[in-house]
Amino acid sequence: MNTTRPAIGIDFGGTSIKSAVVHDGRLLAHGEPIDTEHFPNKNALLDEILRVIAALRAQHPEVAAIGVGLPGFVDSVNGIVHELTNVTGWDEVPLRAILTERTGLAAIIENDAKAMAYGEWKYGAAQNGRNVICITLGTGVGGGLILDGRLYRGAQLAAGEIGHASIDYRGVPGPYGDRGGLEEYVGNHQIAQRAAEMYRDAGHDVPVEKCTPRDLEIAARDGDPVALAMWDRVGAEIGCALVNAIWILNPDAIVIGGGVAKAGDLLFEPIRRIVEKRTDPLFHENLRIVPAALGNEAGMIGCATLAAEAAGQG
Amino acid sequence: MNTTRPAIGIDFGGTSIKSAVVHDGRLLAHGEPIDTEHFPNKNALLDEILRVIAALRAQHPEVAAIGVGLPGFVDSVNGIVHELTNVTGWDEVPLRAILTERTGLAAIIENDAKAMAYGEWKYGAAQNGRNVICITLGTGVGGGLILDGRLYRGAQLAAGEIGHASIDYRGVPGPYGDRGGLEEYVGNHQIAQRAAEMYRDAGHDVPVEKCTPRDLEIAARDGDPVALAMWDRVGAEIGCALVNAIWILNPDAIVIGGGVAKAGDLLFEPIRRIVEKRTDPLFHENLRIVPAALGNEAGMIGCATLAAEAAGQG
Repeated sequence: MNTTRPAIGIDFGGTSIKSAVVHDGRLLAHGEPIDTEHFPNKNALLDEILRVIAALRAQHPEVAAIGVGLPGFVDSVNGIVHELTNVTGWDEVPLRAILTERTGLAAIIENDAKAMAYGEWKYGAAQNGRNVICITLGTGVGGGLILDGRLYRGAQLAAGEIGHASIDYRGVPGPYGDRGGLEEYVGNHQIAQRAAEMYRDAGHDVPVEKCTPRDLEIAARDGDPVALAMWDRVGAEIGCALVNAIWILNPDAIVIGGGVAKAGDLLFEPIRRIVEKRTDPLFHENLRIVPAALGNEAGMIGCATLAAEAAGQG
Repeated sequence: MNTTRPAIGIDFGGTSIKSAVVHDGRLLAHGEPIDTEHFPNKNALLDEILRVIAALRAQHPEVAAIGVGLPGFVDSVNGIVHELTNVTGWDEVPLRAILTERTGLAAIIENDAKAMAYGEWKYGAAQNGRNVICITLGTGVGGGLILDGRLYRGAQLAAGEIGHASIDYRGVPGPYGDRGGLEEYVGNHQIAQRAAEMYRDAGHDVPVEKCTPRDLEIAARDGDPVALAMWDRVGAEIGCALVNAIWILNPDAIVIGGGVAKAGDLLFEPIRRIVEKRTDPLFHENLRIVPAALGNEAGMIGCATLAAEAAGQG
């Protein structure tokens, strides 16, 4: 079925940049990981990315294109990075043109959550879905939409920001003048902060650094009531944000990925409970709410696939 | 450009049913209005609708199809009414088959808010929009979406229910186990109830029946502080629901119709203010938030157009 050539997929994260040669949804070779924070300067980081690309091409000279997924507002049509979350100095950068100029390869850039959604839809948990909401839970909360069997981008190519959609119009202030945005409740840091407070209220002194999603998962599996209550709360809050998206989009599948989602049923049980409780059966009876299947590779696979498809049309 | 033949558009409302012969977005003839409440029995109401259809066909024998917009969950693919809001006895009714059998004409059925959205997009306030959210404010709050230049229906054809999307996950209980659904704040009855309470709190005794959107508009234009505060609150609440949809869908236009929207700037000013305050400029700088242009005719025009297009493809 697939006739695209291999492409390099690059997952540009706030702390590290991962890359791989991808063909038909499989990883043929991994690039050397880059520690983003070691390159505080945009040009030095770009040089390092190009060095890793060159090394991958030396191994796989048949590579036809490059796809980069980035955390922030990305103009995928014109190939411009408007602004990155947690990485400074990347405002209005014509990244696609830079990559093409310096490698001679076709390139695409895309928002990381949209790339992940595309990967999960093409090769992961949402295969065969027609209307899919993907949400990725980490430091930030990102989202991507497949609607009527296509990646949906919106008027300024910025759609899918379910992390900024609000669960409480009088809730916690966010960075955009917004209030009650989901990310302000269930981002990694917010979870840790709130869990530490809940421990304190329960008479325990657990430092914030010991309240990572992983710590809270281990504690909950040991029966720790604070950790169990925290997961129930986080799941309910994510569930409420999804309920809103479900009433609006009536999807057939919701894929949940990112570090926080590794908590598994601790998270998925309250999410499913809230969705069933707060939507009409027509909206939830045939709705699948599933964990992401491609893990950390979803973004690389998604943007490599987008790049290969775009190059194939050229 | 348009080569479809005329079709009959029927707007099936909770209190009245309006109909017209429509061609290329223009009304050629109005059908006799039907008072829904005079026909408590489904079959008697159906007979009355068929009588009005026959009368319109006598005037316009060139009519090629019938489109019906209904308030509730409608399976437009299989032509089945799942359930109507505020009209009993219409559960799981194969309305399209009934209409085709009894008239010999091609027919389609659609949710009324989706029909309105389609009409406003084809011939009204959202012409040339590519990603459009339509919202209709009345007894209920309905919605319809045009995404990537097509009517978006979702997995069970039930998408667009922005009236049930929540602005407060701990808010007012709704009919589906939901909490904080927009309709529970800004439906006609809810507005009247809340305004009467606000008057009472301000030391005035204004009965609920005198707190219709129209009454409150007149009072606000006379400078009545309670009515002005009520519009500001209603606008802000609608604005907050739209902010969520904007973060998720990044539309280029939002069309607001229905009785409540007749308040004009009293409503649109706080809506626009909240949207500008609570979204990134990328999402609102080029966003048009406009009143519906086709008024009460949007639903008839929308479903007649859908019917004519479907018949033209047949």
